[in-house]
Amino acid sequence: MLIVKKFGGTSVGSPERIMNVAIRCVEDFKKGHDVVVVLSAMGKTTDELIALAHKVNPKPQKRELDMLMTTGEQVSVAMMAMAMDSLGVRAISLNAFQVAMHTTSQYGSARLKRIDSERIHHELEDRKIVIVTGFQGINKYDDLTTLGRGGSDTTAVALAAALHADACEIYTDVDGVYTADPRIVKSAKKMPVITYDEMLELATLGAGVLHNRSVEMAKKYGVTLVVRSSLNYSEGTVVKEDTGVEKLLVSGVAVDKDADRVSVIGLKDQPGIAFRLFDTLAKANINVDMILQSIGRDGTKDISFTCDDGVMDDAIKAIEGAKGRLQYKGIDTRADVAKVSIVGAGMMTNPGVAAKMFEALYNEDINISMISTSEIRVTVLIDEKDAERAATAVHDAFKLSD
Amino acid sequence: MLIVKKFGGTSVGSPERIMNVAIRCVEDFKKGHDVVVVLSAMGKTTDELIALAHKVNPKPQKRELDMLMTTGEQVSVAMMAMAMDSLGVRAISLNAFQVAMHTTSQYGSARLKRIDSERIHHELEDRKIVIVTGFQGINKYDDLTTLGRGGSDTTAVALAAALHADACEIYTDVDGVYTADPRIVKSAKKMPVITYDEMLELATLGAGVLHNRSVEMAKKYGVTLVVRSSLNYSEGTVVKEDTGVEKLLVSGVAVDKDADRVSVIGLKDQPGIAFRLFDTLAKANINVDMILQSIGRDGTKDISFTCDDGVMDDAIKAIEGAKGRLQYKGIDTRADVAKVSIVGAGMMTNPGVAAKMFEALYNEDINISMISTSEIRVTVLIDEKDAERAATAVHDAFKLSD
Repeated sequence: MLIVKKFGGTSVGSPERIMNVAIRCVEDFKKGHDVVVVLSAMGKTTDELIALAHKVNPKPQKRELDMLMTTGEQVSVAMMAMAMDSLGVRAISLNAFQVAMHTTSQYGSARLKRIDSERIHHELEDRKIVIVTGFQGINKYDDLTTLGRGGSDTTAVALAAALHADACEIYTDVDGVYTADPRIVKSAKKMPVITYDEMLELATLGAGVLHNRSVEMAKKYGVTLVVRSSLNYSEGTVVKEDTGVEKLLVSGVAVDKDADRVSVIGLKDQPGIAFRLFDTLAKANINVDMILQSIGRDGTKDISFTCDDGVMDDAIKAIEGAKGRLQYKGIDTRADVAKVSIVGAGMMTNPGVAAKMFEALYNEDINISMISTSEIRVTVLIDEKDAERAATAVHDAFKLSD
Repeated sequence: MLIVKKFGGTSVGSPERIMNVAIRCVEDFKKGHDVVVVLSAMGKTTDELIALAHKVNPKPQKRELDMLMTTGEQVSVAMMAMAMDSLGVRAISLNAFQVAMHTTSQYGSARLKRIDSERIHHELEDRKIVIVTGFQGINKYDDLTTLGRGGSDTTAVALAAALHADACEIYTDVDGVYTADPRIVKSAKKMPVITYDEMLELATLGAGVLHNRSVEMAKKYGVTLVVRSSLNYSEGTVVKEDTGVEKLLVSGVAVDKDADRVSVIGLKDQPGIAFRLFDTLAKANINVDMILQSIGRDGTKDISFTCDDGVMDDAIKAIEGAKGRLQYKGIDTRADVAKVSIVGAGMMTNPGVAAKMFEALYNEDINISMISTSEIRVTVLIDEKDAERAATAVHDAFKLSD
């Protein structure tokens, strides 16, 4: 078997943890498997490097920031090769140049284009564990790039695809994907298996342990993922196309408290007004999530949307800046709201799922202020103080603890 | 003019110092010069990385140690490019891959083979300051290598040669090469100019601010060096082939307290015995410096040599291990000795220089226990307690303060 194993920054945060990961990888290697390890930078290294950069330049060039940050993973992989050597196993570290990992040109948010697998295959045939820097690549100018958020997971999935690996294991500090956040819903259960689409919805909702970009790539190339813990030997959660069992109506519940609601009141009820509002926000680089438009009355209507905590002030500023163009009466905002979502591949073919969710919330006397749905997801916006209670009620209603 | 400027770890030891170096380089750039900057790792980074490596492996693989250490200079160059950008000047950092700096394969002590200058020329033509990682290269396997001691100076000289630079400035924490260590000899003077050979002798004696490897390369390719301080605008010392003035009898005095003496007593007075002794030491990887062999008497003779402080115990162990082969009566050692040397290109054609040195020492009642000479150098071994007094006496005798 050829196994790609990815460990995040926390898993390699200290020399002791690096030794633990090394031991774990060597176990698989000694069973006769080919092992490729993808690593993030140690602990908080990336944040520390960014802070260092800001000491000489408040707005460092993106190219140079990538040149700086890519040293983080290089330290991790060299350390790991040394740790494995001290366990008596041959290992070799490779950075983005050495692999090589070709990406697009955008510094800070490059996309993987192509991976040369020749050197890795050569080292594997030589019976070495191959340790690759995650998160980074080189562009057509031979400059170093980074892949942005979720980058190391993406590196691992892309390598698994390029090497036709038999498994791609993503190690984190939790031991799999749960039906809900166990800190919120006590009866939450680990899911043994989940589809790519379900994982994507959960990832987008912030509940997943995987970034949706890596899940998208896994889906595209049919790479079976296993999410598991670097701290124990628990089985983890398998993410793949077809779960092989009857599709669950609802597989998980997600809570996102990092949401604010903005309502623009008294907009003129005429064509093009929604376009103008969201065009204004898009130009200010603000991502909106749920959108709700009231039915027009007295020649005006209201439009509400949710956005991340961090950007609400920017959103208000953008809307106020376009007051002449938008012609509204006022802005109403609320920061103490939360999104609660249910996700399930079986939803598509089973009507009544949303109704069941609303019923559970009604029974708990929880008011819903916005609703948004996709083929396999239903999301409601509620008061933040009700979030835990709502998640537990919905989790129970769909019997996810069974 | 194309100027190569090299700054060591102390000069870039903090964000503030990096800003200072950036300002200094930008001044030259704004005068219209092309500027290439070579940097070491920030402050004690290299030592810290080695300490980190030892936490997972007491004897890390040399390849992986180089992979780890080369991140240090990459951090420096990226930081410098950001600092220059914040001063409103376009700058770009390049690592060993990007230049590319081709070296031999030996990790930890690679030698530069060839430098591709295309990318650097391209960036200079684009009116950017180019900042290059010192100390590192890539070998034929595309693996990262380091150049060992004095590596960043060597990178700077090699770049200056490859780019046909008009000047190669080596910035340190002293403002030039002195006739003696100013901490020892109060009247020591900065030399405005010195030949490669004089600098080589001084470097070998540990008195120079440049590593002899970089001086050798400068001599070979005719690169004029300037040694100057990163802390002030003092003129510094020029190192070149012909000083253009009458060659000085003695240009400098050097003191090296990092020397121990080992005497092997009562060796059989027969051919091949010196070979056997130094072959034994060479196989134990011990560098010896001065050698003195007594005239044979009663069928035996003594051989004394000096070596660095750190290796005396190894030397004794090696000699004792070969006792059967060497057949000697005993070993006598002294750690409290020092070497005092005079260096001068004019020595070759002027007899009596050594005699004048010995006279100065005699007048101070300082006993000489060993003597060694080269074409442009005389070295004596004396008691360590007399070192300062000896250096001052010799410095005065040759009127070096004038």
